[in-house]
Amino acid sequence: MELNQKMYAYGASKSSIREIAAYGSARKAEIGAENVYDFSLGNPSIPSPDAVRQSIERTIQLPPVKVHSYTPANGLPFVREKLASSLCRRFGENAANAGDLYLTCGAAASISISLHAITNPGDEVIVIAPYFPEYRVWIETCGCTCVEVLADADTFQIDTKALAAAITPRTKAVIVNSPNNPVGTVYSAENLAATAEVLRSCDHDIALIADEPYREITYGAVVPWIPSIYERTIVCYSYSKSLSLPGERIGWVLVPPTNPDHDPLIPAVAGAGRALGFVCAPALFQYVLADCVDEPTNVDAYAKNREALTKGLSELGYTYIEPQGAFYLWVKALEPDANAFFERAKSLELLPVPSDSFGCPGWVRVGYCVSYETIVNSMPAWKKLKELYA
Amino acid sequence: MELNQKMYAYGASKSSIREIAAYGSARKAEIGAENVYDFSLGNPSIPSPDAVRQSIERTIQLPPVKVHSYTPANGLPFVREKLASSLCRRFGENAANAGDLYLTCGAAASISISLHAITNPGDEVIVIAPYFPEYRVWIETCGCTCVEVLADADTFQIDTKALAAAITPRTKAVIVNSPNNPVGTVYSAENLAATAEVLRSCDHDIALIADEPYREITYGAVVPWIPSIYERTIVCYSYSKSLSLPGERIGWVLVPPTNPDHDPLIPAVAGAGRALGFVCAPALFQYVLADCVDEPTNVDAYAKNREALTKGLSELGYTYIEPQGAFYLWVKALEPDANAFFERAKSLELLPVPSDSFGCPGWVRVGYCVSYETIVNSMPAWKKLKELYA
Repeated sequence: MELNQKMYAYGASKSSIREIAAYGSARKAEIGAENVYDFSLGNPSIPSPDAVRQSIERTIQLPPVKVHSYTPANGLPFVREKLASSLCRRFGENAANAGDLYLTCGAAASISISLHAITNPGDEVIVIAPYFPEYRVWIETCGCTCVEVLADADTFQIDTKALAAAITPRTKAVIVNSPNNPVGTVYSAENLAATAEVLRSCDHDIALIADEPYREITYGAVVPWIPSIYERTIVCYSYSKSLSLPGERIGWVLVPPTNPDHDPLIPAVAGAGRALGFVCAPALFQYVLADCVDEPTNVDAYAKNREALTKGLSELGYTYIEPQGAFYLWVKALEPDANAFFERAKSLELLPVPSDSFGCPGWVRVGYCVSYETIVNSMPAWKKLKELYA
Repeated sequence: MELNQKMYAYGASKSSIREIAAYGSARKAEIGAENVYDFSLGNPSIPSPDAVRQSIERTIQLPPVKVHSYTPANGLPFVREKLASSLCRRFGENAANAGDLYLTCGAAASISISLHAITNPGDEVIVIAPYFPEYRVWIETCGCTCVEVLADADTFQIDTKALAAAITPRTKAVIVNSPNNPVGTVYSAENLAATAEVLRSCDHDIALIADEPYREITYGAVVPWIPSIYERTIVCYSYSKSLSLPGERIGWVLVPPTNPDHDPLIPAVAGAGRALGFVCAPALFQYVLADCVDEPTNVDAYAKNREALTKGLSELGYTYIEPQGAFYLWVKALEPDANAFFERAKSLELLPVPSDSFGCPGWVRVGYCVSYETIVNSMPAWKKLKELYA
């Protein structure tokens, strides 16, 4: 029978990140894990804090009917209260009320739901390239067009002139991801203020979707709270990186109380969650959030990896963007064609991700959410790779 | 700004089940929980088996990076192996291979994903009324039309003549829910064979989506394995009812190896999951499934409730459909207008769900997944309600 060809295509062509990771797994089985330097995935290498395990242990002593029941579609009220209080402590007393939060099955769900809530087929959604490639999938699934705007070529901050030029009467939203995957940039308050000015100066209203799973993973930089800079912001968050829980699918959408569209957005977000088949966020991990909301993220191991990787590549003469957050290093390919560069790297068992899939030519993403040993042991291969271009 | 009005409407107008449940909660707070007989929700009243707690306790002793990482999009291979083996033991050696299963965030996700995988906008999807009202939401979200076919008025089996009459060139799929919510019917092998004949006799291919969260909750009836009756079947399952885990969102889609569309359906299902923002099913509960796949469902408490409810209402002179499975009793309203009947019931603190939201007038659904005491203590109110119509 004739299936949905779009869905078939999304399933038949895996994301290149997943394809490289699959190759890496197969290659490790073939020649030994210690001989493959797989930098492809964004799977945190730092274990969840022990508070997560303790919270699970405590929670499963409660009556199972209490713990594992359906929760309200937007999440358990006492959990949302705790999350909102934490946000208010961190970002100001107007940051969030419990009723402004909609708990989700992770950031992918948060973004998919937010896009469905605000867009109509035919709309355009702007992404800042390089960008997380799944944005395109979720945008196109809404029947919208994904419009790429290249970041500033030097700083990788938002190029506000290019942004202004890309806006059309059909522009409905801009997705902003800071700290950024794949570059590691944190957009500055000034850059975001200039972005807000561009959006405000339009003839029609434009939403900003702030995708912030890496908020807690920074190396000194302050990550501005975007709702206090641009009023029509929706924040999408996940605990995949901050609590190292990517497989558990737990996060939220926040419609800040200061958003002028707040009142209709709350039911629109809930309606989108319902329409797509998200009944509620996993219940046990809702309890875990209540216990672990203020648990500090262990950034030290990533900082150590970052130091080793940047120092090593720097000494070898590679060019890269100094990452202010997240756990990716954006390294300039040694030839214009990032895919050709990747193939050479691969022949030396180095597996970064070529930049074309992020909407930007000429670079590779090196995920350093791996073991410290992987980074140290990969250096001779990086050296050989450089020599191939001597 | 102009949001998506369809999503807004889905969020602004709650399902009537949820609305009655919300009224019930408020009313309990007002006059005491013991004075309100809330039969609205399908939240299992039986605790998860202790094996679930034990499995969680064991699993969280493993390294957190192993347990909580992203899993493959279709689920952990060793878990799918165990689930497939169990299905083969129960339903024949061709029932399932590990690669035919796609683990999901529960049955709602399974159905939403399956519909997105097989339909194109403009298609029609048939539901057998009375039916679970969210089917309409998920069907319409795919841009398809929900076509209601009334079940046989006496037996509530599938009315195959009515089904044949409803099929058009645009019919893409039929959703079959057995044991049935809201009636409790289990479709017989003969009825399903006749249904298969109707579908096969069409000029074009039609898929059957078997929604089976209540498969394990039966009172003696055998639930036929539909893929062995109709080849173009996709099975949607969830552990919400069998393991009492509705809040944890864990289930699967099975594309049986015997389905002629198997090979393109596997990527189409995976692609739909990806497109909607489902990254993987919750990882910890994937481990739990591996441990608890053959855990028996405790049906005794529901059987006891069913006995008390049917005996009580029978003695009072109510008409109902003897449920063969699930945990709902389908009771004839004492006047043609089920909503008016509901209002009278409500005035006596009885809260069933009127049948109109299930696509069928003149009945109410009484969920008996409540405490035994609720059923026993509600009998005087049911008596009074009957007397109001004397």
